[in-house]
Amino acid sequence: MTTKAYGAHAADKPLEPIAIERRAPGARDVQVDIAYCGVCHSDLHTVRSEWGGTRYPCVPGHEIVGEVTAVGGDVKGFKVGDTVGVGCLVGSCQRCASCADGLEQYCENGFVGTYNGPTRDAPGHTLGGYSQRIVVDEKFVLKIRHPKEQLAAVAPLLCAGITTYSPLKHWNVGPGKKVGIVGIGGLGHMGVKIAHAMGAHVVAFTTSEGKRQDALQLGADEVVVSRDDKQMRAHRGSFDLILDTVAASHSLDAYSELLKRDGTLVLVGVPEHAHPSPNVANLIFKRRAIAGSLIGGIAETQEMLDFCADKGIVSDIEMIPAQKIDEAYDRMVRSDVKYRFVIDIATVA
Amino acid sequence: MTTKAYGAHAADKPLEPIAIERRAPGARDVQVDIAYCGVCHSDLHTVRSEWGGTRYPCVPGHEIVGEVTAVGGDVKGFKVGDTVGVGCLVGSCQRCASCADGLEQYCENGFVGTYNGPTRDAPGHTLGGYSQRIVVDEKFVLKIRHPKEQLAAVAPLLCAGITTYSPLKHWNVGPGKKVGIVGIGGLGHMGVKIAHAMGAHVVAFTTSEGKRQDALQLGADEVVVSRDDKQMRAHRGSFDLILDTVAASHSLDAYSELLKRDGTLVLVGVPEHAHPSPNVANLIFKRRAIAGSLIGGIAETQEMLDFCADKGIVSDIEMIPAQKIDEAYDRMVRSDVKYRFVIDIATVA
Repeated sequence: MTTKAYGAHAADKPLEPIAIERRAPGARDVQVDIAYCGVCHSDLHTVRSEWGGTRYPCVPGHEIVGEVTAVGGDVKGFKVGDTVGVGCLVGSCQRCASCADGLEQYCENGFVGTYNGPTRDAPGHTLGGYSQRIVVDEKFVLKIRHPKEQLAAVAPLLCAGITTYSPLKHWNVGPGKKVGIVGIGGLGHMGVKIAHAMGAHVVAFTTSEGKRQDALQLGADEVVVSRDDKQMRAHRGSFDLILDTVAASHSLDAYSELLKRDGTLVLVGVPEHAHPSPNVANLIFKRRAIAGSLIGGIAETQEMLDFCADKGIVSDIEMIPAQKIDEAYDRMVRSDVKYRFVIDIATVA
Repeated sequence: MTTKAYGAHAADKPLEPIAIERRAPGARDVQVDIAYCGVCHSDLHTVRSEWGGTRYPCVPGHEIVGEVTAVGGDVKGFKVGDTVGVGCLVGSCQRCASCADGLEQYCENGFVGTYNGPTRDAPGHTLGGYSQRIVVDEKFVLKIRHPKEQLAAVAPLLCAGITTYSPLKHWNVGPGKKVGIVGIGGLGHMGVKIAHAMGAHVVAFTTSEGKRQDALQLGADEVVVSRDDKQMRAHRGSFDLILDTVAASHSLDAYSELLKRDGTLVLVGVPEHAHPSPNVANLIFKRRAIAGSLIGGIAETQEMLDFCADKGIVSDIEMIPAQKIDEAYDRMVRSDVKYRFVIDIATVA
């Protein structure tokens, strides 16, 4: 099935309309007509091959929502007309320990990313959600229970939402816990909303005093301007968990010293240039940890979507037509978006 | 009570015989006549003021074993003639959350170290175990149940033993777990023995092929020469926990990539020069953590001593007279000891 998409033919080329092939749905496949697709920093890094290894043509997009328009004969969980989502993963080995634990994102044999992943489909690598349609094994399709009018704002939950929900859940965030969210952008604004909905006391860290009111409105109980030593010092030794969404190189010590004994600083972004080496004494003298976390598994992504539907949580978005994607990338690099761009896939037509 | 000791009057002076004052036992104090005292790297760092902040005269020593020779009127847990130990701590605030949790080593108000800590006793800072006698609040005195003839070899359990036992216990080492111990010295040789006794599969990491037989005899199931990439690669993604006892600056990535998903690399030493900044992707893509751990609390130290008594575990030691302490320091710096020096305190007389 020929499908219209937006993609790039090389790292130094802009995105442009291209035609791609989608496979006919197999027995266990779900065919989704895409309504909206969120725009993630990974899209930009991949399409511009900033991490290397990008295969072209490259069609990014892994915050996908839409409607089921066909299902294979063995599909049990979905039917035509269902509102569904597809996130960062469209495959995994299904037989390793991590897959058995429902943690497909940590598949020991390598998960299949929604774009730039290995596939037998043409052209030999997966093509993402900046396209009218996608065909995905039902195991990697999520049900969406939010009201229909919120659908565009649900899209970013599929990456930004689960990337923050998963570590908050894994490290037992809830009532009585004090949680920091570093960086109030695409990921961080979801982290604030979700941690607040989990019942924690939420402190938002931002470099900019100008984001104070916004962070409070997102659900933060307190806002700390991280460049203000006095504000930072006031929180020393007080956090159970700090979720650091900032991928740019920065001092981890500034946050590790704010943790309680046994507290954890969780990183979800890989910096282009290494962070300064963390102070080991900061870890030893309070048994603190610095950990990493990657998106979330499929079962947990469903749990997150249901949690967000129950709590009325969606992303704060700015809708764009596909034609504006390069401009949106440039604005995203400048953090000039509150807080996530979402492509109206109708404009791909 | 005037007590003979070995101490230094300045950072650049050798240790020499000195006379110190010990307080008369208060109502809750236990007076211990010291039989043996282990020699820890911290002793050397402190006496030479390599960490700064050393107060003189400095009498090091926090791996203390001996016999109770007097008790205060309110002491309930000890009587004259008991064989006891004193480790790294002789006081803490007893009212913070960490003290309430029996984790006095993380006392929010700062624990009192066995030497160079704050005290109202003369000369205003605590003086350690390179001395004939010490007077300690019973809360910080440990019972020793090992056979008497093992007493000298029990001394290093009070620091090297608990520093390795505590993280092994905290991170749930036991049967079915694969545990790495990095560095086969004073701490590491105890880590191998204890992890083995806990029932784990133990892999010893050493830079030196020459330590292979020794490590196997200590209880390692496997030995990996960390400079051999091929040996290292064979263990990728396989460890539940790696306990890194090496305080010199080295690559943490070499070990973090050997961890399973959700595995933890625990550091117990503060390097003089920072480790190279760890690779964040190594953490994110397997939800791994780098953590720190500091000695252990009093209840846990007692638990460790009882565990070691039950399992017949002591340290491998080389006994020295007090007069040889500077020579022992020099050999310790060269790792020329299997695996811990212990001072025969009878020689202080």
